[in-house]
Amino acid sequence: MTETIGIMAGIFTTIAAIPQIVRAIKNRGVKDVSPFMFIILIIGVSLWTWYGFLKNDLPIIITNGISTLFNAIMLLLIIKYRDIK
Amino acid sequence: MTETIGIMAGIFTTIAAIPQIVRAIKNRGVKDVSPFMFIILIIGVSLWTWYGFLKNDLPIIITNGISTLFNAIMLLLIIKYRDIK
Repeated sequence: MTETIGIMAGIFTTIAAIPQIVRAIKNRGVKDVSPFMFIILIIGVSLWTWYGFLKNDLPIIITNGISTLFNAIMLLLIIKYRDIK
Repeated sequence: MTETIGIMAGIFTTIAAIPQIVRAIKNRGVKDVSPFMFIILIIGVSLWTWYGFLKNDLPIIITNGISTLFNAIMLLLIIKYRDIK
């Protein structure tokens, strides 16, 4: 059961950035979105990925690795759309 | 070292929502912020907190517990400011 909870938790936190990515692309607007949130998140989930390797904990490695990717995509979108008012 | 990485990772992912909360209060604007991101995040970090209890892993319990609180605050701000254009 524990592994299942870990994988479900990881799936939710991993896919969380997707609706924000879709909204940024659809609205071509990121004015209200904080870039610092995503910079800090990227550092955090990268550290969680490292933590997962140190603990040999697959749910943590996979989910936080993908999270790092999605949060990086969102940060790129913030940079791309930030001048659009 | 592993516990240190876990605590640092947790601190970063926990405080990540703060700049977004500050920006929402300052701008009184959340138009570009996806509520679904925070709904999914709240489910995810609550599950991580449960996972931490099952694994008796303090860094995961503390950080994801506080994350749940911050993401819930952000969701309330989205509800409060969503009609402001």
